[in-house]
Amino acid sequence: MLFSNTQQPTACLLICCPDKPGIVAGVSQFLYQSGANILDASQHSTDPREGLFFMRMEFLLPNLDKAALEAAFQAQVATPLQMEWTIDYSDRRKQMAIMVSAYDHCLLELLWRWKSGELQVDIPLVISNHRTLEKDVANFGIPFHHIPVTAANKAEQEAKTIQLLHDHQVDFTVLARYMQILSANFVKHFPQRIINIHHSFLPAFAGAKPYQNAYARGVKLIGATAHYVTDELDEGPIIEQDVARVSHKHTVEDLVMLGRDIERQVLTRAVKAHIDDRVILHGNKTIVF
Amino acid sequence: MLFSNTQQPTACLLICCPDKPGIVAGVSQFLYQSGANILDASQHSTDPREGLFFMRMEFLLPNLDKAALEAAFQAQVATPLQMEWTIDYSDRRKQMAIMVSAYDHCLLELLWRWKSGELQVDIPLVISNHRTLEKDVANFGIPFHHIPVTAANKAEQEAKTIQLLHDHQVDFTVLARYMQILSANFVKHFPQRIINIHHSFLPAFAGAKPYQNAYARGVKLIGATAHYVTDELDEGPIIEQDVARVSHKHTVEDLVMLGRDIERQVLTRAVKAHIDDRVILHGNKTIVF
Amino acid sequence: MLFSNTQQPTACLLICCPDKPGIVAGVSQFLYQSGANILDASQHSTDPREGLFFMRMEFLLPNLDKAALEAAFQAQVATPLQMEWTIDYSDRRKQMAIMVSAYDHCLLELLWRWKSGELQVDIPLVISNHRTLEKDVANFGIPFHHIPVTAANKAEQEAKTIQLLHDHQVDFTVLARYMQILSANFVKHFPQRIINIHHSFLPAFAGAKPYQNAYARGVKLIGATAHYVTDELDEGPIIEQDVARVSHKHTVEDLVMLGRDIERQVLTRAVKAHIDDRVILHGNKTIVF
Amino acid sequence: MLFSNTQQPTACLLICCPDKPGIVAGVSQFLYQSGANILDASQHSTDPREGLFFMRMEFLLPNLDKAALEAAFQAQVATPLQMEWTIDYSDRRKQMAIMVSAYDHCLLELLWRWKSGELQVDIPLVISNHRTLEKDVANFGIPFHHIPVTAANKAEQEAKTIQLLHDHQVDFTVLARYMQILSANFVKHFPQRIINIHHSFLPAFAGAKPYQNAYARGVKLIGATAHYVTDELDEGPIIEQDVARVSHKHTVEDLVMLGRDIERQVLTRAVKAHIDDRVILHGNKTIVF
Repeated sequence: MLFSNTQQPTACLLICCPDKPGIVAGVSQFLYQSGANILDASQHSTDPREGLFFMRMEFLLPNLDKAALEAAFQAQVATPLQMEWTIDYSDRRKQMAIMVSAYDHCLLELLWRWKSGELQVDIPLVISNHRTLEKDVANFGIPFHHIPVTAANKAEQEAKTIQLLHDHQVDFTVLARYMQILSANFVKHFPQRIINIHHSFLPAFAGAKPYQNAYARGVKLIGATAHYVTDELDEGPIIEQDVARVSHKHTVEDLVMLGRDIERQVLTRAVKAHIDDRVILHGNKTIVF
Repeated sequence: MLFSNTQQPTACLLICCPDKPGIVAGVSQFLYQSGANILDASQHSTDPREGLFFMRMEFLLPNLDKAALEAAFQAQVATPLQMEWTIDYSDRRKQMAIMVSAYDHCLLELLWRWKSGELQVDIPLVISNHRTLEKDVANFGIPFHHIPVTAANKAEQEAKTIQLLHDHQVDFTVLARYMQILSANFVKHFPQRIINIHHSFLPAFAGAKPYQNAYARGVKLIGATAHYVTDELDEGPIIEQDVARVSHKHTVEDLVMLGRDIERQVLTRAVKAHIDDRVILHGNKTIVF
Repeated sequence: MLFSNTQQPTACLLICCPDKPGIVAGVSQFLYQSGANILDASQHSTDPREGLFFMRMEFLLPNLDKAALEAAFQAQVATPLQMEWTIDYSDRRKQMAIMVSAYDHCLLELLWRWKSGELQVDIPLVISNHRTLEKDVANFGIPFHHIPVTAANKAEQEAKTIQLLHDHQVDFTVLARYMQILSANFVKHFPQRIINIHHSFLPAFAGAKPYQNAYARGVKLIGATAHYVTDELDEGPIIEQDVARVSHKHTVEDLVMLGRDIERQVLTRAVKAHIDDRVILHGNKTIVF
Repeated sequence: MLFSNTQQPTACLLICCPDKPGIVAGVSQFLYQSGANILDASQHSTDPREGLFFMRMEFLLPNLDKAALEAAFQAQVATPLQMEWTIDYSDRRKQMAIMVSAYDHCLLELLWRWKSGELQVDIPLVISNHRTLEKDVANFGIPFHHIPVTAANKAEQEAKTIQLLHDHQVDFTVLARYMQILSANFVKHFPQRIINIHHSFLPAFAGAKPYQNAYARGVKLIGATAHYVTDELDEGPIIEQDVARVSHKHTVEDLVMLGRDIERQVLTRAVKAHIDDRVILHGNKTIVF
């Protein structure tokens, strides 16, 4: 976080490989010899039975050809250590799409943080199945695409949406309270590329009407969960969660209102972590550095 | 809370009745004419479809015969307004039993708070199916009863336990990580009289091994729930809940360790609320004033 | 909170008087006989040395002449019990002004919550010493007044502002990060009528540059404080406070960014409490029911 | 945390040096060649004007002579990179003393966590200026030293205490609500070796009677701060802080009671971080990895 405003471009390397001695040494030696200065490093070893090692390294990008750097890394480090890895560069901003229905709170929170410089992405488009928020989006100078969805046209609407996301070279999509369930086919096009906000503390109250169900159960905290979308509803890897205290005084409408604040915070933190390359998938769980 | 240390005895009235104008006036007028000074009052009206009114009133006890006060209240206020009500007096401390297995953290937290004067109850006995904590309990000068339980002797062990609780005129029992499931028959003897601490944020991870299940799901918060025991496992009315933040770094053992802190806090707050007559049951939910 | 959306108008009575038996009975009896149904009641007694009693009662407004109701209350209840009191009616929305400089986060949070119906007030005007946020305010359809301030014109600018607030019959003013210190004369016109958000956990880091000072001291939490403005800088009665966790990783710029979220939440909660007549002043402290 | 229970001994290296490329590579290469497997690594670079680099590396200890390892590290890595560094080994438990007056809550919390295995230290002695807690300490099988302190004997009492701490080869001392101010001379003997818990959110309410002052100011949160003791009262480097919500309902006595819970939590977390070699001093601030 602290280096995100630095002038010189940075790179962020995410790594997963079998755990063994020498990985930190191998990677850091390679970066040193390439002229890169490490700014931040985090690592995680799973328990020995699984034996996996995960690492995030952020470094000042040396004045080198990126393709050459990547090829050298593959040959000298990644192949010998059986690594899966990705690299992202701060001088190439991610392209983030937002899908939304008619609730404005998550959308506006993202747009306001984007405008204020907190979210270092481009937002080439917002897609909605309603026209409700068209003007709000226009105020931020972002193109708004209205793609209505009905039971009858769902496949067609999804095809059109997939096409739009591809056309805009979108890196990932945020469902900012998008009230439609995406088909397995849709999700398949964007693995670990769709972030959803669910308005409960999962796995409690998965599915529809979580605030009503929380009210009926009489819980003393309500929550929200940001997760990657998989083809199992509300079962994807959790990125971030938080809760707020409620009491017998709160009606379902109160829970909805209080929940908006948690949804905004949780979704924002998850989106930031994704933008900053802090999230690595590990099975159905996340490592958030 | 702030009046619990006052010298003059106080009384606490809990009320449930159909909502209609004049209830506060009726009760407060009665208390005023009886010479009682109201110290604290809380009320709650359910939504109009249900139409119920709940109230808690704490007052300095006038120098009157308690039975006479209660009879007058029944005749002049409760009957006309179709009230269910209870009254408790600060000069008669509640009798609290604790049941525990081998984990010490919830037990010691309760005993330390009791010793420090935070919990204004008597603790006539601790019952355990193990001898592990016998010396810890003895250090506080409280009788310890060891009643082993096996698959074969469960009915007999429960009968013995029920007898003990009755013999000691126990008002309520706290399961401070008691690792046995109580039979429906046992629970039936003590309706809204048994408080359990479950080591998850219910309704997530009900049943056995909540920390393992939380770990497997990759949640970012773990929780604990204090609730009244009913004959449906982990489905009773929730009194209090809280959570703590966890991450991919935490093993199941870490979750168990971090969870102990939440369990201690949540159980303590629930027990305090019960002791202070702050909890009213409303269906399967609680009103905690 | 739960009754704020009810159709029938409500009234809210705030009371302060010497503590003695019979106050609740007197007020509730009066309301009952006036045909009012009490929706919510809260009370607070200070310690016996001070001997003060505070109460908030919200009730469904009977179909009566308001002036007659108030006169009767004064004669029958307030005078005998030596009460100071105020009453507010839900069918007369408060008029809230906002003063702001160039930071948008607190302003937009208030405006968004107002638009979404969370803040039940009218906002007749926003006043700023800069033009920076003119368009943002216009998007919400609220008049924006630009009143520049310099060392030379400060008295004149304040006079103009006071006039504007009076012209719009403003009930209270929110300083949503207004970066000017108001003169004692200005404050004197609006006692307990100006709410400020200070970007620290007061009394720590009063005055200028709280985030820089928090950074220099190495605190592990940063905070924000909403308080009524008095003529002693950052010394007014505190309405609400909250904090967020920080670490050595955070630069001053990070603290500023993280602080925005706390400022938004804390200011919003304070403004809501004020709008809902939940705040009573007691010396330099607040009672927030 | 997650590796603290591993069977094979581990070592923890703390480093501070001028920031420049190659530090991570240099250290990790050295450890790799020494046969050490890195378990966890954290690093922090200050802003470029200061240009400092801090790192913590925890690794499985290779089967080597410790003195030889340290000498080689000094020659090959530390000297060339101008490092200040320390190393600690898990197979040599730290010796922790506790000083306490008459409040038991912080002491018992530490002792209970020590007994439960959460605090991996030896506790060779508890020192108190009162006999109040002698039996509590004896229950844990730890020697209790009673050293009364008066205005007259303070120098002598401190000399005796210093001698005791030296005799027991104490690594660090925890002031678990020790109600005496240590002299500058005392503190000088144990730089960054004394952890104190102050019962306020510093820098607010430094000095005596913080709960009274918090009450008088009408704050809405109370806090606690764990810090290293320096010769400026309550001005030492902060390790950990936390807060709890309070309201107008709470008396000073209530704040004291609620504060105990925060003090226990905050002190415990600070002591754990110190034991686990997670804290590096940086001027008057701490880096807590």
